[in-house]
Amino acid sequence: MRFDQPVSVQWIAEFTGARMIGDTNQLCTGINEIHKVSPGDISFVDFEKYYDKCLYSPATVIIINKEVACPEGKTLLVLDDPFSAYVKIVKHFRPFEPARQMISDSAQIGEGTQLQPGVFIGNHVQIGKNCLIHPNVTIYDHTIIGDNTIIHAGSVLGADAFYFKRRKERSIQYDKLESCGRVIIGNDVEIGACCTIDKGVSGDTIVGEGTKLDNHIHIGHGAVIGRNCLFAAQVGIGGKAIIEDEVILWGQVGVSKDLVIGKGAVVNAQSGVPSSIEGGQAYFGSPAAPAKDKMKELFWVKQIPEIWKRLNRDTK
Amino acid sequence: MRFDQPVSVQWIAEFTGARMIGDTNQLCTGINEIHKVSPGDISFVDFEKYYDKCLYSPATVIIINKEVACPEGKTLLVLDDPFSAYVKIVKHFRPFEPARQMISDSAQIGEGTQLQPGVFIGNHVQIGKNCLIHPNVTIYDHTIIGDNTIIHAGSVLGADAFYFKRRKERSIQYDKLESCGRVIIGNDVEIGACCTIDKGVSGDTIVGEGTKLDNHIHIGHGAVIGRNCLFAAQVGIGGKAIIEDEVILWGQVGVSKDLVIGKGAVVNAQSGVPSSIEGGQAYFGSPAAPAKDKMKELFWVKQIPEIWKRLNRDTK
Amino acid sequence: MRFDQPVSVQWIAEFTGARMIGDTNQLCTGINEIHKVSPGDISFVDFEKYYDKCLYSPATVIIINKEVACPEGKTLLVLDDPFSAYVKIVKHFRPFEPARQMISDSAQIGEGTQLQPGVFIGNHVQIGKNCLIHPNVTIYDHTIIGDNTIIHAGSVLGADAFYFKRRKERSIQYDKLESCGRVIIGNDVEIGACCTIDKGVSGDTIVGEGTKLDNHIHIGHGAVIGRNCLFAAQVGIGGKAIIEDEVILWGQVGVSKDLVIGKGAVVNAQSGVPSSIEGGQAYFGSPAAPAKDKMKELFWVKQIPEIWKRLNRDTK
Repeated sequence: MRFDQPVSVQWIAEFTGARMIGDTNQLCTGINEIHKVSPGDISFVDFEKYYDKCLYSPATVIIINKEVACPEGKTLLVLDDPFSAYVKIVKHFRPFEPARQMISDSAQIGEGTQLQPGVFIGNHVQIGKNCLIHPNVTIYDHTIIGDNTIIHAGSVLGADAFYFKRRKERSIQYDKLESCGRVIIGNDVEIGACCTIDKGVSGDTIVGEGTKLDNHIHIGHGAVIGRNCLFAAQVGIGGKAIIEDEVILWGQVGVSKDLVIGKGAVVNAQSGVPSSIEGGQAYFGSPAAPAKDKMKELFWVKQIPEIWKRLNRDTK
Repeated sequence: MRFDQPVSVQWIAEFTGARMIGDTNQLCTGINEIHKVSPGDISFVDFEKYYDKCLYSPATVIIINKEVACPEGKTLLVLDDPFSAYVKIVKHFRPFEPARQMISDSAQIGEGTQLQPGVFIGNHVQIGKNCLIHPNVTIYDHTIIGDNTIIHAGSVLGADAFYFKRRKERSIQYDKLESCGRVIIGNDVEIGACCTIDKGVSGDTIVGEGTKLDNHIHIGHGAVIGRNCLFAAQVGIGGKAIIEDEVILWGQVGVSKDLVIGKGAVVNAQSGVPSSIEGGQAYFGSPAAPAKDKMKELFWVKQIPEIWKRLNRDTK
Repeated sequence: MRFDQPVSVQWIAEFTGARMIGDTNQLCTGINEIHKVSPGDISFVDFEKYYDKCLYSPATVIIINKEVACPEGKTLLVLDDPFSAYVKIVKHFRPFEPARQMISDSAQIGEGTQLQPGVFIGNHVQIGKNCLIHPNVTIYDHTIIGDNTIIHAGSVLGADAFYFKRRKERSIQYDKLESCGRVIIGNDVEIGACCTIDKGVSGDTIVGEGTKLDNHIHIGHGAVIGRNCLFAAQVGIGGKAIIEDEVILWGQVGVSKDLVIGKGAVVNAQSGVPSSIEGGQAYFGSPAAPAKDKMKELFWVKQIPEIWKRLNRDTK
């Protein structure tokens, strides 16, 4: 997330109660998770094994739970609980704004776009031209939708990322990471009924132009779906998955988080994709394998009784 | 789809810019996909391998992308892009009518039927007597619902068919087939919360009387569900599947398109049905097999380590 | 379900047309399914094999379809169709109350709780403090929600139990068991978008405090979910399942009804849990097995071609 205007690192230090190390005159231009940072960003780290990744990332300001050497030109904000400090900053700069009506006054709706009854449009939403939003759709704050896009009834764009930090020592164990990313939908997309597309934690969840989603599809926080993809009903995509262009996922396919499905891959119905797969071929099974290998495997499983018979005959 | 009144084939030819071959004085009474046509219908074909199927179907007027011999008593409308011509005709005769309010003035609602708040009822919808429609349900235009039917909150009836033609040469590759079919729900049906039942492409999606659906169920375009079926939560049914009477599908079952599940079949949870199966027995697995065979297979898979051990012992 | 005030067993007998055996001066304090009964309750039984279970349960009044010996201190109500009598009593004491507006006057909403537009709150609902209910959520009558709970858009709490009695001899075969249980959500729960949590048949469906649900999750009637559980998207939980504290279910997991998942169990994505499993370990597969066993099984399946090769070589 970008701030509306730069914020001094001194202000952030005071706001979070942190001790500053390094350059104390920085201006912070935004706040992001470690895998989404740019120069000017604040990020945070609370596990020693990720310290170096964060310290040597493009982030300019690092909230950290131990005093370590500060890389040249950066600022460390040292405090006990970086996760909570990050959440505090996000809540301050992206506070929840209660809605006053079904269509926010701050939403921009393009010419020729039809909003059917019961549609909720949150604050600061932008919708392009000639879209058709069917009844009872919910579009959370800050969502951006292109031109000629159709969204069927009951779908929900921009609900919070499902992302928690576990604190086993507490009675209520899961601490929510407030999300400040957005949902961005391209031109000529069609989204079926009762789909959910969550906002990113700090970056954006993106559906590329020309992509078509059937009903009951879930797209997790920060996932990036390419152009001209086709997902059949009840597909689920985990957080931060990258689905390249022209990928076809058939019904009830599940895709894990933090992986890449290569361009033009086709995944057969009910398959589960646990890790990255290459494009240009068909997959099947849970865990998914190239379809031709999986077909052979199904064949071989059926040979086991014959193997058993032969083994008994041959070794009598 | 039937037209409200017959339309001359000359008008259709002019409207689509087609060249006519054969009988130029036909009256067209409707438009349908090839597998749903009746005499009087317009249909279309754009692949040579389906030419004969379409030319010798009951359709009276065939939109086709090549000049071929016209069967007796029919009319060919020759043009470059039959798919687009079909879509143009559908859009003309079944144009999208924006809603003016949550309950359309043109809807007919039977005596004793209760519509809870937040329900959207589209144009030309018919609902029978003594139904109960829970909050935030969306019922698209032209849907027909029988008597004594219950629909739980958040469900969506009549969203568009998920049906596209791919044009790999274009930047936006998927071209939408506008759907003009309807959803027809019988008497004494119960539909759970957050279900979706799509309209047919040109024919009707049907749920037979006495059938009960749990939550999050997806029924694809043109599927025909029999009487007294029972589907547990999160079941998905592909387009044009035929599910005969008294079929039981347990949770998360996936059923592929264009197949038949015979009367009284029972499919165990999470199974995937890729092709037609006979009625009167139980199935399990993905791909689904008769449950007793699948149970044996699970048994045999567990014997592999023993087979390996014996093989090594016997052949030492 | 508890009655608002005790009802004499004579009244119940007259109302249902039953013949009384045993103590005819009882006061009935509620009505419940056999597995949920307490002293003072009415329950019913219509299968001989369950007679003893019901007669010697804590229930005080038993609706039964045969004249049998009445246990000391109890009352039998003998009639032909106990199921229908039970439904008649439930409908009388918990009649459907049509809504007059989106937020019922009889609902109690705690301080600091924000209801976004399009939210439906049924009669007699109680919501605690500082909750956030996103747009187009539906909360059926009698639901109880704790403090600090977040419910995302499109979710449905309190839809009817999916519970029917089959009467094969009738034209409409499935007879609905009217449900009179409630949904009870603890403090600090988060429920994703387009989730459904059904009410219990006569008892309550419970989600324990601190539990977090992702999108498209289904929780069946009477399920009891513990504290600090984490369920990923598209998980489905069958009726009356008991999920103990700190259980983690990954995406698209299916859990059957009437079972127990022990504390701290982790079930990997797309697994299917058909019967009770112990806590404290990881599971995988459909049907689910301990993950380490399932991993071995996947390894062994891949050895079959080698086994085949060796078998042919060795026995040539």
